[in-house]
Amino acid sequence: MPRFALLGAGFIGSVHAANLAVHPDVTFSLVYDINHARAHSLAAAHGARATTDLDEAFDPHGIDAVFIASSTDTHAQHLVRAAEAGIAVLCEKPIDLDLTHAREASAHAAGHGIPVMVDFNRRFDRDYAELRRIVVDEEIGDVELIQLSTRGPSLPPLSYIATSGGQMRDQTVHFFDLARWISGLDPVEVFATGSALADPRLAEHDDVDTSAVTLRLPTGALVQIDSVRRTGYGYDERIEVLGSTGMIEARRHRTGNVSRYSAGRVVEDGLHAGWFERVRPTYAAALDHFITALGNGTAPAPSLEDGLKAQAIAEAATRSLHTRRTETIDY
Amino acid sequence: MPRFALLGAGFIGSVHAANLAVHPDVTFSLVYDINHARAHSLAAAHGARATTDLDEAFDPHGIDAVFIASSTDTHAQHLVRAAEAGIAVLCEKPIDLDLTHAREASAHAAGHGIPVMVDFNRRFDRDYAELRRIVVDEEIGDVELIQLSTRGPSLPPLSYIATSGGQMRDQTVHFFDLARWISGLDPVEVFATGSALADPRLAEHDDVDTSAVTLRLPTGALVQIDSVRRTGYGYDERIEVLGSTGMIEARRHRTGNVSRYSAGRVVEDGLHAGWFERVRPTYAAALDHFITALGNGTAPAPSLEDGLKAQAIAEAATRSLHTRRTETIDY
Amino acid sequence: MPRFALLGAGFIGSVHAANLAVHPDVTFSLVYDINHARAHSLAAAHGARATTDLDEAFDPHGIDAVFIASSTDTHAQHLVRAAEAGIAVLCEKPIDLDLTHAREASAHAAGHGIPVMVDFNRRFDRDYAELRRIVVDEEIGDVELIQLSTRGPSLPPLSYIATSGGQMRDQTVHFFDLARWISGLDPVEVFATGSALADPRLAEHDDVDTSAVTLRLPTGALVQIDSVRRTGYGYDERIEVLGSTGMIEARRHRTGNVSRYSAGRVVEDGLHAGWFERVRPTYAAALDHFITALGNGTAPAPSLEDGLKAQAIAEAATRSLHTRRTETIDY
Amino acid sequence: MPRFALLGAGFIGSVHAANLAVHPDVTFSLVYDINHARAHSLAAAHGARATTDLDEAFDPHGIDAVFIASSTDTHAQHLVRAAEAGIAVLCEKPIDLDLTHAREASAHAAGHGIPVMVDFNRRFDRDYAELRRIVVDEEIGDVELIQLSTRGPSLPPLSYIATSGGQMRDQTVHFFDLARWISGLDPVEVFATGSALADPRLAEHDDVDTSAVTLRLPTGALVQIDSVRRTGYGYDERIEVLGSTGMIEARRHRTGNVSRYSAGRVVEDGLHAGWFERVRPTYAAALDHFITALGNGTAPAPSLEDGLKAQAIAEAATRSLHTRRTETIDY
Repeated sequence: MPRFALLGAGFIGSVHAANLAVHPDVTFSLVYDINHARAHSLAAAHGARATTDLDEAFDPHGIDAVFIASSTDTHAQHLVRAAEAGIAVLCEKPIDLDLTHAREASAHAAGHGIPVMVDFNRRFDRDYAELRRIVVDEEIGDVELIQLSTRGPSLPPLSYIATSGGQMRDQTVHFFDLARWISGLDPVEVFATGSALADPRLAEHDDVDTSAVTLRLPTGALVQIDSVRRTGYGYDERIEVLGSTGMIEARRHRTGNVSRYSAGRVVEDGLHAGWFERVRPTYAAALDHFITALGNGTAPAPSLEDGLKAQAIAEAATRSLHTRRTETIDY
Repeated sequence: MPRFALLGAGFIGSVHAANLAVHPDVTFSLVYDINHARAHSLAAAHGARATTDLDEAFDPHGIDAVFIASSTDTHAQHLVRAAEAGIAVLCEKPIDLDLTHAREASAHAAGHGIPVMVDFNRRFDRDYAELRRIVVDEEIGDVELIQLSTRGPSLPPLSYIATSGGQMRDQTVHFFDLARWISGLDPVEVFATGSALADPRLAEHDDVDTSAVTLRLPTGALVQIDSVRRTGYGYDERIEVLGSTGMIEARRHRTGNVSRYSAGRVVEDGLHAGWFERVRPTYAAALDHFITALGNGTAPAPSLEDGLKAQAIAEAATRSLHTRRTETIDY
Repeated sequence: MPRFALLGAGFIGSVHAANLAVHPDVTFSLVYDINHARAHSLAAAHGARATTDLDEAFDPHGIDAVFIASSTDTHAQHLVRAAEAGIAVLCEKPIDLDLTHAREASAHAAGHGIPVMVDFNRRFDRDYAELRRIVVDEEIGDVELIQLSTRGPSLPPLSYIATSGGQMRDQTVHFFDLARWISGLDPVEVFATGSALADPRLAEHDDVDTSAVTLRLPTGALVQIDSVRRTGYGYDERIEVLGSTGMIEARRHRTGNVSRYSAGRVVEDGLHAGWFERVRPTYAAALDHFITALGNGTAPAPSLEDGLKAQAIAEAATRSLHTRRTETIDY
Repeated sequence: MPRFALLGAGFIGSVHAANLAVHPDVTFSLVYDINHARAHSLAAAHGARATTDLDEAFDPHGIDAVFIASSTDTHAQHLVRAAEAGIAVLCEKPIDLDLTHAREASAHAAGHGIPVMVDFNRRFDRDYAELRRIVVDEEIGDVELIQLSTRGPSLPPLSYIATSGGQMRDQTVHFFDLARWISGLDPVEVFATGSALADPRLAEHDDVDTSAVTLRLPTGALVQIDSVRRTGYGYDERIEVLGSTGMIEARRHRTGNVSRYSAGRVVEDGLHAGWFERVRPTYAAALDHFITALGNGTAPAPSLEDGLKAQAIAEAATRSLHTRRTETIDY
């Protein structure tokens, strides 16, 4: 069984730790964090060891795979180091906020031939996987229009926003990946426009919280994405794919199945209060895919290339926000 | 084109008048009512003549068909008279509140060989017809369980209740007919129990406003019907048919398609406020069926026999309300 | 009661004729069409007179209002002539495919002070009206994002396409109007992109059948519209309005309410087969609004100005299809 | 932290073992089963000890609570023995198939004052709890009609059926409990009728697979329950409560949120394939309630009395299946 080191014991690290701890085909060996107390607390909860010494995490005699869940600015260096040690990598997106750096680190890692997977976890959502299967099986003919909505319930802290790289790179990038994955095509052009409506201070960070993106695929098919940071009504994701002979919809999730009928209206359960509740099962499914690929000796996906391509779309979209025109995407 | 006389210019008469007036294959000739002003007003609105003289309505030289929408206690005599005049009949249910009288009048009419249809209009509901088609086409295998809900928004006036014959004969009878029509089978036994919950004064009339009925079909298949006079939340009808290989549902109708999402809930449009809004299209469809049958020389349905059988079930159900045991149905 | 002349006895004219014929507060006097047989046939069906002489239609001694449902290239001249005769006008959109001509004719008509309404019938859809009421009542706070889908089931004939002015002017224009009406704001910028996917021959007419439009409102709020000529799965319209405190949705319509449950799936009724079935009730409602406004002496809406503004957005969107950049809208 | 012994290492025992193993406030000490290999295998998977010696399980120095998940005919004796040892009990239903024996054992246990909970796990379903909260908060006024559906996808093995006590005692009993819990009332009368439609051999065991039950509450309110062993379309549970001022519905669950639109129909995800997938989360929630009650020193519910009352209703319903009449319920 592969022995895993988890890098990063923050919120998302704790999610991955819980999944590593219960996976039957994994040995959860080590938690690394620069914060000693945090590493120890998380490791203890799941029967792993804790360390603040990175050398332990990259020791190929004790570790077969690292899960990079540390702060974004450390991803690239951890990836490179794992590659040099011949250790497999499951990495939170992005490789690096700077696409050029991300490409360099990826090229370096690729040269060492280690298995690497970028954790675009939404690909492992049950509904999205079913939707894609229907497209791939050509049940709706050729893809002509894809619509994706990504809407968070409330604005993240401004401190988070300030270092996030902006809405395209931080939030919409997941849906750039989904658009590629569902269509099997690399978009060629992008138009994006947005506003800071939830909090005008975002404009000071050159960021937006409400945006509309249009992608053009090489076939002429179109993709529309709306990205919203603060809905006020809960966490809302949705995908619709219109093909030449039919349409598929992955509907927004509700928290329950209770309806109240009174004169003039029906009240139903609302949406999830936060993103984590909505996408929770995808983390375990993504991890399971990675572990299965390691076991089978197959290449896990999404790959580093997938990560870089989604990021390239985000770069072009970010440019378009300023130029008010269509931008060509450079992969 | 058949020339129609409408008997009865009350509310339901005015519904039928409007449908007669716009049907392209009918001549709407005459409105009869004992109330002169009412007859004239309705006739004038639709370009028909008015009369208080029944002889005109049953004159075969001027009239080819009568639509009996007068008070219940006149149905049987109008039916007989039309039969004797050789005039076709479309009759509001029931033939007569007394089943024996109803059978006698029906036998008399049948002897004259005129086309007669009982206006169980729900058979002409688009959803119910589609549901039955699926059953008849054996898409769900053998029928095993049918569930029907019939729920009015508010209690009719006590004066109406007092002469209605009770909930089974007045309200549930439509659903006894639907159960027969959908299954193609005559129930053999019935159990009914009920309470006067909306208004305890109904008990003084030996009536109930909330009841549960169970029918057994000759195959052992079961039927459950709930009948409610006052829901407080609108007009609610619903049918579900469970077969050996699948299930079909004719869902309750909503008034619209608007959803409002806010934190914690989704508010949607409610149900119809009253029965008429819900079943309105069925009246025109039923009339059209009758007219088409007249034109084609085929037998319209539901037939007099259908009317009597639904009534026989209602009789047995009414007995069961008192005996607290299963009653055999005598057709 | 106002006496109406209907100009144009084609398909849409016959729809309006049926509504005029049954409206209780109207005298349906005249049907004009250049095709004598067509005018007579339609007039006869509804008890009106027929003519091929335009002078009759614009004779203020016999006619109080004209319903312009003739071919698009005649709208402007009929509008002007009615204005000069002091006759009220209900006009199919657009005033003229050429925006400059449309503005000139409108200015001319406005100078005569007659009541004029442009028949953007979707404003009278029950669901859209309810959705707008919720926005206007500020139940969802400030509008931040509006999404509209307009999708027809199958491509119109190429001959129709060739003279339609293109998808923006012919199809999307209704939704430009809805976006203005719902938000109460005039969009300032538009981006549009599209492809000829259903039939590549549309490209020869410089037209598209699948397009994505993004509007920016003066508040920074955004509007996304997808317009599709051929869905393959039925007629599909939908509006969603995201506000600062909640969201509203006018969902796509289904043809019925029947669900079939079998192992692994639930099959429900589909969408309307065509646009007319979906929007049918809006024509009568729009007509009723116009008649009521005439009776009350109030100004009917949508006004000529509404018609011109929607058209101005369509012009800018059509430009953007070619420039691949944001276009400013000139009203 | 309370130390738990699990009695029974079959399928349902393994479900409880997994929940015991991950609950943070429990020490999962022991697995007892008469089958040594089965006990060891399950214990080893969760870090507990295994035994075939019942004395260990009832040793109050090592065990604070037992989870009785052994075969039904052992429940009563285990309950009594735990009571005598002063050990808390969480017991799978029923206490004993014979109601008299069940009452005797319960009375014995009650005399020792130990905390006892009967595992009617559906009370811990998120939707049912929300539905009941709405009733208890009187948001729909007085309860007037409750409808419950319990429908399994496929017939259990005949060997299981033969020792199950029949459909009322084995399947419907959960819904008798829910009816009491939701309404807060003890039904006074019951009528039941049923058929062996899925497999006629059930009749040889004096059993049914498709049944309709009607309960009368002391207020005159009614309860309708349909119980089906084999739907062919998946696992289907549903509750509806009609009150004097509104109605609530806990809708059937779907496996996903994907819709496919094609000409004429919409295909959606189906129902759960089996009961366990549907009710899975309720087991952990029920266990958590029991543990919390132990910690707080409060009485857990459903109580022994709740278990006996549901069973008493099942007894009377079973009688009614034969007498074809209403039966009074003797608690």
